[in-house]
Parts: sequence; C-alpha cells; structure tokens
Amino acid sequence: MTATSFSPHISRQFDQELEDIRARVLAMGGLTEAQIADALEALCDGNSELAEQVIENDIKVNTLEVSIDEDCTQILARRQPAATDLRLVVAVGKTITDLERIGDEAEKIGHMALHLAENQCPKSYYVGLESMGNHVRAMLHDALDAFARMDSESALKVASEDPKVDQEYVAILRQLITYMMEDPRSIARAMDVIWSVRALERIGDHASNICENVIYLVEGKNVRHVSLEEMRKKVRPESD
Amino acid sequence: MTATSFSPHISRQFDQELEDIRARVLAMGGLTEAQIADALEALCDGNSELAEQVIENDIKVNTLEVSIDEDCTQILARRQPAATDLRLVVAVGKTITDLERIGDEAEKIGHMALHLAENQCPKSYYVGLESMGNHVRAMLHDALDAFARMDSESALKVASEDPKVDQEYVAILRQLITYMMEDPRSIARAMDVIWSVRALERIGDHASNICENVIYLVEGKNVRHVSLEEMRKKVRPESD
Repeated sequence: MTATSFSPHISRQFDQELEDIRARVLAMGGLTEAQIADALEALCDGNSELAEQVIENDIKVNTLEVSIDEDCTQILARRQPAATDLRLVVAVGKTITDLERIGDEAEKIGHMALHLAENQCPKSYYVGLESMGNHVRAMLHDALDAFARMDSESALKVASEDPKVDQEYVAILRQLITYMMEDPRSIARAMDVIWSVRALERIGDHASNICENVIYLVEGKNVRHVSLEEMRKKVRPESD
Repeated sequence: MTATSFSPHISRQFDQELEDIRARVLAMGGLTEAQIADALEALCDGNSELAEQVIENDIKVNTLEVSIDEDCTQILARRQPAATDLRLVVAVGKTITDLERIGDEAEKIGHMALHLAENQCPKSYYVGLESMGNHVRAMLHDALDAFARMDSESALKVASEDPKVDQEYVAILRQLITYMMEDPRSIARAMDVIWSVRALERIGDHASNICENVIYLVEGKNVRHVSLEEMRKKVRPESD
C-alpha cells in the first residue's frame, strides 16, 4: 500500500504541527546523511579537518533530536492525537532515536578518521569500506524517502538490503583480520578501520529500523523482530 | 528529589494500567539483567549450553518490548494522559527500547561465548572482562531500582558510573591488542573477546540512558546529551 494521506483536521493549526514534525524529521535525516558522507570522505581521504567538522556537527543532530522529541510530547499533551496521527507521533519518536544513533556512529567514524589520518593508513585497508558506506547511506536516503512518501513497499525494499550489508561487513572484517595476521604492527591501525566498518553496519541496522517505523505508520502493524518474509506478508497481505 | 508519587485518578482502571506497565518494565529489566549474568557466565566458563540458552531467550525480551510498546500506544490513544502520566508513558517507551538493545548485546555475548568455547580461549583473555560485566550489570540493576522508586538522585549516581566503565573498556581493549600483537594466531579469538567487551560497554551506555529517562520522568527535564555536571544541576538545582 502506498501514500496514505492524512485526513484534514478541524484544527488547521494541528495539521500544521504534524506537517512541521514530518519536515523536521526529514531535515534531521538530511543532516545525518551528510554526516555519513562527510565521515566517509574524511576517512578515505585522510582529511582531518573534515573529520573534526563531522565530530563538531554531531551536536546539531543531538539538538534536533531533543527539540523534535519535545514537539512530539507537546502534541501528545495538547492535541491527544488518535489513529494515524498518533501513529505518526509514535513513529517520529522512534525514528529520531535511530537518526540520533546514526549520528553517533558517523561521529565515531570521524574520530577513527582522525586517528587514521595521523597514522598514514594504507589505502588497501579501505577496500570495500567505501562501497559499504555508500550502500548504507543509500539505505538511509531511501528509508527517509519512504517515510516522506509514506510508502511501505519501498520501506520493505530498503529493509531487504540489510542482509547484504551484513555480508559486506563480514567480508571486510575477514580481510582486515588477514592484514592483522600478516603484519601485527598494523593491528592498532586495522582496529580503527574495524570500528569504522562496525559503525557502518550499525547504520544499516538503524536505517532498517526506520523502515519498520514507516511500515508501522502506514500499515498500523508492528514489524519489529520479525523476519523479512513475515514483513513482506504484512505489507502485501494480498500476495499470501 | 525523591519518590514523587502518582496522584490518584478518577478511573481506578487507569491507575491499574499505569501500574501494570511499570511492573512490566521492571519484569523486562529483570529478564535482561539475568541475560547479562548468564551471558557472562557462559563466556567466562566456556559453557556452550548456557550460551545457547541466552541466544534463545532473546526472543522473550523482544516479545516483552513489542507488548509493552503496544500497551503504551493503547494508553496514549484511550487515556490521553497528561503531565506525570504522559511522562511515564514516554519514559517507558524509551526505556524498553534501551532494554531491548541491552538484550541484543547480551545475545551477541552469547554468540561470542559459543565461538570461544569451541576455540578453547585462555582464561587470561577474560581478565577485567568479568569485573566490567559485573559493573554494567550493577548499573542496570541500580538504574531499574531508581526507575522503580522514581529516584532521580540515584539515577544520577548510576549515570556517573559510565565514565568508569569506559575507562575499564579502554584498558581491557589495550590489553587484548597487546595479546594480538604478541601472538598473531590468537587474533580471531581475541576479536571475539573484543566484541564481547564492546557489547558490555554498550550495555553501560543503555543503562545510563535509562537513568536519563528516570530523571526526565521525575524532574520533567530532558537531560539527554548533557554533561554529568549539567545533569547534576538539573537534579539538584538547590546546590547551584
């Protein structure tokens, strides 16, 4: 099912408030997307300045989370939303938690980029990492897009990418462990790359969580902790 | 401030519902505490059976999360809570997310315990890990206690433990990296221990988050992303 639209409220002001939190979530999402992109660039290009900027910018992500969270509580207290409106507020509350954690992971990559830039890490260590990074960034982008369009089918499609990210993660990890075994002096450096890859893997998980929130919002069904197969059935019950 | 109590509601049924979700959060907390204890024991004693049990039990934690989350949404929809009641529902919603993630981390330790039991990991690798594990378990226990008693001062005290856990984490990590450099054949094994220590560090973070939820619930002040010093000022404004 696609593009359920909100029914108009008696209070235009209320409509505006709901529209505002949706827009603010998307703005927060755009910021975290940019943080991932910058963190990756800082890491792969050894750009310390950009890494420091990513670390500093995390406070913007955090501030947005607190502010949108307060908006949600205000709406619950003053508007006492029901049905789809309530689901929107609940889904937004969960989504901003995931976005905030994605921001934290981008910040961690920023710190690792700083260490690695100091230690002149060979490019071979980043093989696979950049493409995995672009993969999870695309997942986040598409998850936010599904949220914006209230499109549960797209959300499902994005969530289906996560197992592939996990496979990339395992392959990169294995490669890095081989490097460490071949050259034990590289261990500390390789560990910094490992933490970065781990952070990317977590970003993929959070992007999937956002997809679950979209499915909850659109379909009114909780799909947390269910397999992709079951999720599919809940989004497209007609195909059973 | 300590032990703010709920004012009685016109509807006894509503009082009962709020009391129920509080009790269920504590039950879920007790289960995750037991999961951490079992995961640690499985790891340190090389007990594969117990490790498998921890992995299986994670579904119980997940099921509780989904069920309490639904209770919260029901209360929001039907009771339209305000003031402290609304804060309770919001704080419960956040706390169960943290508890569920703690459960995930315990499960990860369970998987690592399985690997390590197969690979006969020497006891020296676990030096520090057991005590760090007990530390974060105590943090979770005390955080849940602060939640049960609505005691923001205790919550603050628990959150103040987190930097110490982070120090333990860094020290253990350094030690493990030394082992890896001394004996590169041990790298894969040491990595499994590293993932377990990382999981413990994350559990400490989530226990701190629960403390922040308690402070929000009792004091009505959002203390996410603020320093411990600022948190202290918000909990004990009289000491400024």
